[in-house]
Amino acid sequence: MTDPLLDPLFTTAEASQAFSPAARLQGMLDFEAALARAEAATGVIPDSAVSAIAAACDAALYDTDALGAEAALAGNTAIPLVKHLTARVKETDPEAARFVHWGATSQDAMDSGLMLQLRGFIDGLDADVKTLSAALADLADRHRSTPMVARTWLQHALPTTFGLKAAVWLDALGRDRERLAAARGRLALQFGGAAGTLAALGGAGPAVAGALARELGLPLPALPWHTSRDRITELASALGILAGTLGTIGRDVSLMMQMEVAEAFEPSGPGRGGSSTMPHKRNPVSCAVLLSAAIRAPALVGGLLAAQVQEHERGLGGWHAEWQALPDLARIVAGAARHASGLIAGLTVDAGRMRANLDLTRGLILAEAVTMALGERMGRLAAHSRVAEASRRAAADHRPLRDVLEEDSEIVAALGADGLDRLFDPLNYTGSAGHFIDRVLAAHATDQ
Amino acid sequence: MTDPLLDPLFTTAEASQAFSPAARLQGMLDFEAALARAEAATGVIPDSAVSAIAAACDAALYDTDALGAEAALAGNTAIPLVKHLTARVKETDPEAARFVHWGATSQDAMDSGLMLQLRGFIDGLDADVKTLSAALADLADRHRSTPMVARTWLQHALPTTFGLKAAVWLDALGRDRERLAAARGRLALQFGGAAGTLAALGGAGPAVAGALARELGLPLPALPWHTSRDRITELASALGILAGTLGTIGRDVSLMMQMEVAEAFEPSGPGRGGSSTMPHKRNPVSCAVLLSAAIRAPALVGGLLAAQVQEHERGLGGWHAEWQALPDLARIVAGAARHASGLIAGLTVDAGRMRANLDLTRGLILAEAVTMALGERMGRLAAHSRVAEASRRAAADHRPLRDVLEEDSEIVAALGADGLDRLFDPLNYTGSAGHFIDRVLAAHATDQ
Amino acid sequence: MTDPLLDPLFTTAEASQAFSPAARLQGMLDFEAALARAEAATGVIPDSAVSAIAAACDAALYDTDALGAEAALAGNTAIPLVKHLTARVKETDPEAARFVHWGATSQDAMDSGLMLQLRGFIDGLDADVKTLSAALADLADRHRSTPMVARTWLQHALPTTFGLKAAVWLDALGRDRERLAAARGRLALQFGGAAGTLAALGGAGPAVAGALARELGLPLPALPWHTSRDRITELASALGILAGTLGTIGRDVSLMMQMEVAEAFEPSGPGRGGSSTMPHKRNPVSCAVLLSAAIRAPALVGGLLAAQVQEHERGLGGWHAEWQALPDLARIVAGAARHASGLIAGLTVDAGRMRANLDLTRGLILAEAVTMALGERMGRLAAHSRVAEASRRAAADHRPLRDVLEEDSEIVAALGADGLDRLFDPLNYTGSAGHFIDRVLAAHATDQ
Amino acid sequence: MTDPLLDPLFTTAEASQAFSPAARLQGMLDFEAALARAEAATGVIPDSAVSAIAAACDAALYDTDALGAEAALAGNTAIPLVKHLTARVKETDPEAARFVHWGATSQDAMDSGLMLQLRGFIDGLDADVKTLSAALADLADRHRSTPMVARTWLQHALPTTFGLKAAVWLDALGRDRERLAAARGRLALQFGGAAGTLAALGGAGPAVAGALARELGLPLPALPWHTSRDRITELASALGILAGTLGTIGRDVSLMMQMEVAEAFEPSGPGRGGSSTMPHKRNPVSCAVLLSAAIRAPALVGGLLAAQVQEHERGLGGWHAEWQALPDLARIVAGAARHASGLIAGLTVDAGRMRANLDLTRGLILAEAVTMALGERMGRLAAHSRVAEASRRAAADHRPLRDVLEEDSEIVAALGADGLDRLFDPLNYTGSAGHFIDRVLAAHATDQ
Repeated sequence: MTDPLLDPLFTTAEASQAFSPAARLQGMLDFEAALARAEAATGVIPDSAVSAIAAACDAALYDTDALGAEAALAGNTAIPLVKHLTARVKETDPEAARFVHWGATSQDAMDSGLMLQLRGFIDGLDADVKTLSAALADLADRHRSTPMVARTWLQHALPTTFGLKAAVWLDALGRDRERLAAARGRLALQFGGAAGTLAALGGAGPAVAGALARELGLPLPALPWHTSRDRITELASALGILAGTLGTIGRDVSLMMQMEVAEAFEPSGPGRGGSSTMPHKRNPVSCAVLLSAAIRAPALVGGLLAAQVQEHERGLGGWHAEWQALPDLARIVAGAARHASGLIAGLTVDAGRMRANLDLTRGLILAEAVTMALGERMGRLAAHSRVAEASRRAAADHRPLRDVLEEDSEIVAALGADGLDRLFDPLNYTGSAGHFIDRVLAAHATDQ
Repeated sequence: MTDPLLDPLFTTAEASQAFSPAARLQGMLDFEAALARAEAATGVIPDSAVSAIAAACDAALYDTDALGAEAALAGNTAIPLVKHLTARVKETDPEAARFVHWGATSQDAMDSGLMLQLRGFIDGLDADVKTLSAALADLADRHRSTPMVARTWLQHALPTTFGLKAAVWLDALGRDRERLAAARGRLALQFGGAAGTLAALGGAGPAVAGALARELGLPLPALPWHTSRDRITELASALGILAGTLGTIGRDVSLMMQMEVAEAFEPSGPGRGGSSTMPHKRNPVSCAVLLSAAIRAPALVGGLLAAQVQEHERGLGGWHAEWQALPDLARIVAGAARHASGLIAGLTVDAGRMRANLDLTRGLILAEAVTMALGERMGRLAAHSRVAEASRRAAADHRPLRDVLEEDSEIVAALGADGLDRLFDPLNYTGSAGHFIDRVLAAHATDQ
Repeated sequence: MTDPLLDPLFTTAEASQAFSPAARLQGMLDFEAALARAEAATGVIPDSAVSAIAAACDAALYDTDALGAEAALAGNTAIPLVKHLTARVKETDPEAARFVHWGATSQDAMDSGLMLQLRGFIDGLDADVKTLSAALADLADRHRSTPMVARTWLQHALPTTFGLKAAVWLDALGRDRERLAAARGRLALQFGGAAGTLAALGGAGPAVAGALARELGLPLPALPWHTSRDRITELASALGILAGTLGTIGRDVSLMMQMEVAEAFEPSGPGRGGSSTMPHKRNPVSCAVLLSAAIRAPALVGGLLAAQVQEHERGLGGWHAEWQALPDLARIVAGAARHASGLIAGLTVDAGRMRANLDLTRGLILAEAVTMALGERMGRLAAHSRVAEASRRAAADHRPLRDVLEEDSEIVAALGADGLDRLFDPLNYTGSAGHFIDRVLAAHATDQ
Repeated sequence: MTDPLLDPLFTTAEASQAFSPAARLQGMLDFEAALARAEAATGVIPDSAVSAIAAACDAALYDTDALGAEAALAGNTAIPLVKHLTARVKETDPEAARFVHWGATSQDAMDSGLMLQLRGFIDGLDADVKTLSAALADLADRHRSTPMVARTWLQHALPTTFGLKAAVWLDALGRDRERLAAARGRLALQFGGAAGTLAALGGAGPAVAGALARELGLPLPALPWHTSRDRITELASALGILAGTLGTIGRDVSLMMQMEVAEAFEPSGPGRGGSSTMPHKRNPVSCAVLLSAAIRAPALVGGLLAAQVQEHERGLGGWHAEWQALPDLARIVAGAARHASGLIAGLTVDAGRMRANLDLTRGLILAEAVTMALGERMGRLAAHSRVAEASRRAAADHRPLRDVLEEDSEIVAALGADGLDRLFDPLNYTGSAGHFIDRVLAAHATDQ
């Protein structure tokens, strides 16, 4: 764990683990072991060299602090790691030591190792997003007939259902998963040697690359991509967009959780969200984490995009800029996804309060319903101005809109008392909400 | 054009046009006309209303300045536009005026209009990227046997070919086009009415939405996505990543164009890149534009990602933040793509100078070739230290590495004079460069 | 105006004007005229050359579109402008034409012109911030005894006063003004000639530079700063920070303006914030603009910081990246400041509703007050758990905290009935709010 | 250290220490101890409570992992820390335990602790920047007469001196130090209690706050600033700007270090910048770190600016977003400053190569010198076109410009052979370079 005080709040143990120093070393060592196997399989190095090399490819064998200190001079971690790996192999099999890292360059090991870390990380993240999606699908289904205020510009607009709100979140997450999958699919083997030509392998380059890709379970790219960092920035973007989706959930829940709104609440529990000074207070901790990730992620994505311009065959500074920024981004998005999952699974929904808030405008929220119904009879603009006038009066006098409307015999005649009853039940003015929920749930069911 | 002094340098006329005030108005008006047609086709409004509405849906009929002034009070452009559109329809067909914008909300018109603008824009951008790709494919093919220095960390590393460098750029652009296509495919109809429920359409919502999507040639989404801005940020990310790819080209060309390197040059022409004070100087104007876009785009992407958190059913501030930032981003990426296309098509390549620069290190650049060849005989580490020692001496004494190596009878015995001849021809140490070029060209041919 | 549809909403006419194409040209032309005067005054060019040059330094004389088209080839605007300026001078005084732009480089004209634009812009912006500050000072003073809920983590915390909230905003604006002034003070003359050495002026460089600085009213820097862009990024940062201060106001007002909270409201008026579909709705348009600026500004600042790395004596791409990004940033911050000024000056405050919201937790909001009072008798932790327990019961049973507390004879004995009366008046638990307001108002008075 | 593999490369031990978990805890504990002392001194708590509280305010006494786990539920670190602190005090002095954290809120402890961390960090950073400045002053002075190519747009422009280049870097650093000092001066005590009113202290708030500020050596602000984060973003901006200044140095040195340019070099040493595959190669490791910081810092600043909008009396998510982003930024800027200091102190300068590169254009680089000299006789434009024509011919025929000029008898007559000698010595065309160096060195001397 990189920060024992903050990581438990902001990330997951799995993400911390995925980008730990040990995992970084192991990613590179997995590359080195697979390289030996691939080169033996293609006759580039002797079969006999494999076992000693593979045996030494265990991160636990290396001194992280020493590697860090040497990397500070060498400029990257792979340089000292390969040195120490070679030394260790030499101890058991001096002949095998000749073939360590054969034909590869530092960045091959670092990038390919990173690919392994990232693919594992994405799988874990996707599992959390899938869990979150299932919880949202459940929420959308259960609350398909729970009316609540739809708010635009932070103002009351019309009725909607809480199920539709959950379905909107779910719908976006479906695309987030597709983007993550697309980005994951482009995380390919890095293997080009010092100049991206695999020159050191003579004519065996393509065969070794193919075997190495198979060994590592990574796609074989058309060519090495040392300075084509779009694979990295595509993943970063997908993570940043997901952070935005999650942040939207966090914002909405935190707004609904306001004392004056009180429609939905984070799950509570011992030690969770308590205040040090206010005994009655419950802080929306998960929302804070979601919003925090949504604030930080865009900048981290921007930083990675800025690092994309890398010079010539291997860049200066841009590549270095990725090493901490990408894990930082991954870690906080994983934390947000986990928090969102728990938040949604344990969300307390107060349907009564949702219904009560619909009445806060004394019927004004259904003015459009009335306008549309009237519009069928007297034209949209006429109806609009008629209802607008009634709404203004209702607002000015603090009276229910219905009462004001009922004083207008023309309107009563046009709509009927029954019509008004129907119009002032918010459940009757949620339009296609159910249809939309069905479509999203169907798509969700297909994705599983 | 938004800025007559700078736009000709930084963007294209087409992109300027795609996001001009007139295009924005027309996008919204196309939505309004299509809405009328879709609602007539589904029996929601009378057929007779269509022609008057459609006739008024021409941006040239409206006063941009007046709309801008009213939008400053209303908070968005659609509100006054719908007002003026309705008034204009009323003049010719008061009955039809009742059905303008029926059941829709401002954001439906603005977002759907934007989708139309964006799809047109992307098609134009893709055409430029395709042209650029073809030019790069040509470059890669023509220069597959043009050796040059591969540079890592801005230092000489090994030989490569200029064809491979071009192929690396081309390879990334292939993925950029895929990402643009994926993002384009997700640019869907926006149609939800004031609360995202299409409540004003009663049960006809889905039918109208389907017809409207067909009218506009836009995908029909599962549900309205007023606050799910991932479609926007996915496109923004794809543009930002493309800017990075283009910036990489700009950086490399500008580095190759340095007086001391002099390997490749921007096309020149009257008035192009001249200096106001230095008669001999030719500024890499296109590289400046490419780099400028690569510097600005990440921040603009970050800003759009930051805008992704939008509250409840329609957000406050986040949506507004998109209106200028997304066109700004699109404009500069289009400009960079156009510049890159001209830059590559007209690139002057000095193959002789590329070859000469390979000799700058007096053979040190082929030290790895020697090391690998020796390594087959005496082991990689031993060969490494032997050649490293020779290299140090060659560097210290400013002598060719080959001369130093030839003083070592063991090395001469191991490699032979012929072997040294072969080893010191850089063309013989470009490994799989040709193979990689072939793979990329094949993929490129398939894409066309 | 760069965008007639959106600029009226997002910026001010003054800021639009400050960064218009005409203003950019005039800035450069002011530099050229002052340069002629300074060089004549120092004997570098003949006095007779000044009048023809100065007469031609009027932006209205030049064709913006033609300059834009030529700049697209030349790489910046100053190159064609100097060409056309020289041609125009030549028409009236061929001899004088020899001395146009004498010893200067494009960037001298562009940067110095920008400095003039920026200083004028900052003065205008500061006037708006000053007006806003005065409105806030008035608000702080008028509402120093208006109790309201203090909210932390979007949850009710304790009582505060609305005056203190206004004072907190005002306090930050005071530092914003200091930062703007500091940044303004560092906006210095740019004058170095093609290499930053003023070589073309021989030994007269320092004298001309000094005279030129005086002519333009700009500070004379220690040396030319063509690639030291910290003056630009410092100003950008100050603008970005101000955007954050303003965004905080926008966020808070928009939260207070929620239907369920209803404590404060944007000013309303004809056409302002109306909804196209909901007759009763009033959109917080100014808050949207403030939030939008606070979302966009950080990215624009980040983009300018990214542009700060400029190569050698004049950079490639980084400088170009500033040309649109800095005015974009300035424009939206100016718009936000103007909106904030109107928003605060016209803010409708509902003190009754603020008071009512304090009662929403049935006294829980004063639990700390009780805890502290009890703490003096039974220790902080004991009081804390005692009141926490009572609070839990009050919350569970939906009863006023006071009623629950009154059932505990020990507490009643400790505090007395009078004590409880006093404790449950929120005005008695606003601590040093008045003191803090006084300090900020005193500082504000000093600043004027 | 947060990342033992990467921190030695990217940051300093001091910065790692300044933002370590232990330092964060100690910052909060220093606040708590000082609070007890201040409250005892002002009679708010008994004097007898101080010693037990102060004794427990030692970070070594607390279990970081346990605090982290509890913070993950509580939402911040201060909540569990105060709990454990209180428990520990209780063990030795139950009476004193009542007064732990008296009247304060979590954010008071966290922000004030952060202020202490930041001020210590800034002092350390400034020491590095001062060392770097001294090294640059020395470089500027030693190389005031070392001519080299001035490059604009990455193209040769005119002669300059290496001393002037160093002076330009130094000049910017002077402003960086001023900005850091200004930001440091605004890092003030945070002390407001749960609502920013210090209500829990009754009337003693101001007195306690004053005493507390003195205890901690922090400025006393006009009021608590829990959601006015401009102090944070001002510091972040100053750090980001400094990163840009340092990145400029890194870019220039890395460009000068290119094999084809070879004018200046990073210091070398065992294990420093070696390549894993190319025995002859020396990587510019410090430049990579400087550029990496300049790429990452803008995004981190942007993220912190985005976090500046914090709701009401204490924000949700924005505050959380600072906790890792600000230390991350501080760490990499410190690393860059340290690297820059070593880079400049150990820079190898090849004055001979600088001189040789001046000749690469066979005199074209002095075309302006000739133009200016001729201009005094035949007018600037005429001279310009005359020399431009000669330059074109010289370039086309690969001949020295001087030779071409000497074929033009009019030019020879105008300038004389001596004149041409003088004009083609680059040292004679460095204008006010020496004057500028003097001004910067004088300002530097004053700053020390």
